[in-house]
Amino acid sequence: NDQHATKRKLDKSVQDHLYFDSYADVSIHEEMIADSVRTDAYRLGIARNGAAIRGKAVLDVGAGTGVLSVFCAQAGARKVYAVEASSIAEQAAQIVRLNAVADRVEVIRGRLEDVELPEPVDVIVSEWMGYALLHESMLNSVLVARDRWLRPGGLMLPSRAELFVAPVSDLVLEERLRFWGSVKERYGVDMSCMTDFARRCIMNRDIAVSAVAVEDVLSHPARFAELDLHAVTEQELQNVRGTFRCDCFGSASVSALCVWFAVSFPGGGGGGGGDKPLVLSTSPFKAETHWKQAVLYLDEPVEVEQDTRVEGEIRMFPSEESARHLCIHVECAVGGLRQQSKTFSIPDGYPDVQ
Amino acid sequence: NDQHATKRKLDKSVQDHLYFDSYADVSIHEEMIADSVRTDAYRLGIARNGAAIRGKAVLDVGAGTGVLSVFCAQAGARKVYAVEASSIAEQAAQIVRLNAVADRVEVIRGRLEDVELPEPVDVIVSEWMGYALLHESMLNSVLVARDRWLRPGGLMLPSRAELFVAPVSDLVLEERLRFWGSVKERYGVDMSCMTDFARRCIMNRDIAVSAVAVEDVLSHPARFAELDLHAVTEQELQNVRGTFRCDCFGSASVSALCVWFAVSFPGGGGGGGGDKPLVLSTSPFKAETHWKQAVLYLDEPVEVEQDTRVEGEIRMFPSEESARHLCIHVECAVGGLRQQSKTFSIPDGYPDVQ
Repeated sequence: NDQHATKRKLDKSVQDHLYFDSYADVSIHEEMIADSVRTDAYRLGIARNGAAIRGKAVLDVGAGTGVLSVFCAQAGARKVYAVEASSIAEQAAQIVRLNAVADRVEVIRGRLEDVELPEPVDVIVSEWMGYALLHESMLNSVLVARDRWLRPGGLMLPSRAELFVAPVSDLVLEERLRFWGSVKERYGVDMSCMTDFARRCIMNRDIAVSAVAVEDVLSHPARFAELDLHAVTEQELQNVRGTFRCDCFGSASVSALCVWFAVSFPGGGGGGGGDKPLVLSTSPFKAETHWKQAVLYLDEPVEVEQDTRVEGEIRMFPSEESARHLCIHVECAVGGLRQQSKTFSIPDGYPDVQ
Repeated sequence: NDQHATKRKLDKSVQDHLYFDSYADVSIHEEMIADSVRTDAYRLGIARNGAAIRGKAVLDVGAGTGVLSVFCAQAGARKVYAVEASSIAEQAAQIVRLNAVADRVEVIRGRLEDVELPEPVDVIVSEWMGYALLHESMLNSVLVARDRWLRPGGLMLPSRAELFVAPVSDLVLEERLRFWGSVKERYGVDMSCMTDFARRCIMNRDIAVSAVAVEDVLSHPARFAELDLHAVTEQELQNVRGTFRCDCFGSASVSALCVWFAVSFPGGGGGGGGDKPLVLSTSPFKAETHWKQAVLYLDEPVEVEQDTRVEGEIRMFPSEESARHLCIHVECAVGGLRQQSKTFSIPDGYPDVQ
């Protein structure tokens, strides 16, 4: 139908316009603020780094409603530059006034790349993470901000990102496939031949964003990539890759690989948290966040037993159609056999996060 | 973001291609077949009209997986032409063979407008209804089929469609708006000024497809339009309009008008159902269907009391960008005051039905 009319190359300015426009709607901001795992992690991550923030200048990249900027002002920042390209910047300005920090927080509407600040900053805070960490890759703008405006020795919040993978089964998929076998009993028409077609349709090349149940995760997580946000370059983001090796817990049917991320804030030293970093994790073993997990389906389910090894390589890179659109290439072998090779992307029409 | 890149005029052939492609995925067929209100209504509507079908030729417009065609063969049709433009036609052909009716059901892949049948038909069956009845308007193709292939005095299944409206309150909306007042308590940042922005974002010009709870419906339904499918013309579909008048049950806050439809199958005479038509209703007072209801938000909630009159006019017409895209224009007065005038459409990126 009409809404599928999207697979085409967009020139850069049109892409940016659409990108920033979609943030003007309230639902995405409601979802982000209501995600207390996310919002509390930033609140605490900022509070614990109060020593580095107090009396200093902070840049908030993609400030949205400005909540992180207000956290920084509450932590004692001398000045916070809240840069936001979409029209939600108007709401951020109101929120800043309402919280009586307008003397310290300056909302600047514009693209980070176009903004001129009157001074370098001591701290950059940003909530830049998309689905599977890099979908939408606002991280590029954060790195531009770092290279252009962060004082040498300054602080990135968060400062580190990690990517994880584990093989998963999918009970919902199995129930959906069984549906077609049940139609004859319900309506007197045998539709069991749809099962195979349904499997092909569902186990496709789309990155499915969904909340994976703990009981569906078939091994310990394997960390396959790590980004040091003080050091990683834009060039390196063009090709984030790593290998993984997982040993299955027991007999099960592997339908997919599940990918998720964690970002961490430095401990700040001396604070209540000591020097242990504060981690915002989107693991299926932890409380659900609005990022859920990224599910990458194999072509068909593969049976495994205890200690069956699932191993391979994952490579993440921007799609050719749109730099903000993520592709994930997977090479995967189960039990030393069945080498699979598949490239995934998030389908058009997927709701935004960040 | 990239996925919002859709508001543009498409030429007719591209539109058709995208329209038919989207039906190739399995999820929509799963949703339709699993919708037992829908599927059972067609199953019974066809069975009750067995006298008109037995030994006759039937045309199924937009046959999808072919389930209605198999129902017609089971009801004794001599021949069923199952016309389907998308690649799901291949699955329909398999299903027809699996149910041992391949001698009577012929699956024809193509647009109805391009298909040549070897004979006129006695019955046309089609499940053509979209959100708010006319979104996607496959009904146009059904009328072409009728005018070109239905024998004079032939039967349309269903034979009648009706449109209804009622004022509704929206407790989910009210909860969503209250959220912004709760942020200060949760995180120490006052975001109460977002409430007004949130109201403007949510109470917008999009047709929201959602399941309205019975307790949110504030009056008896008012029928505002009716289509006799034996007689209605393509020209008349360009402008389906009617007036409505509702008297509210009691004190409440009206947030929106809720629009839904029913289609009906003739009783068939002599059968178990006598001559009473069999109705497939998508009313909020009945069991939920995959069509749910179409919710049209006012600009802001309006307080009503018992017997407050909500009245006005509704006009439905195809959008200029795409003939399959529905617009709904509403003129509405509450308690004789506050004349509101607003034109709604279904946003791009909305999942398909039908």
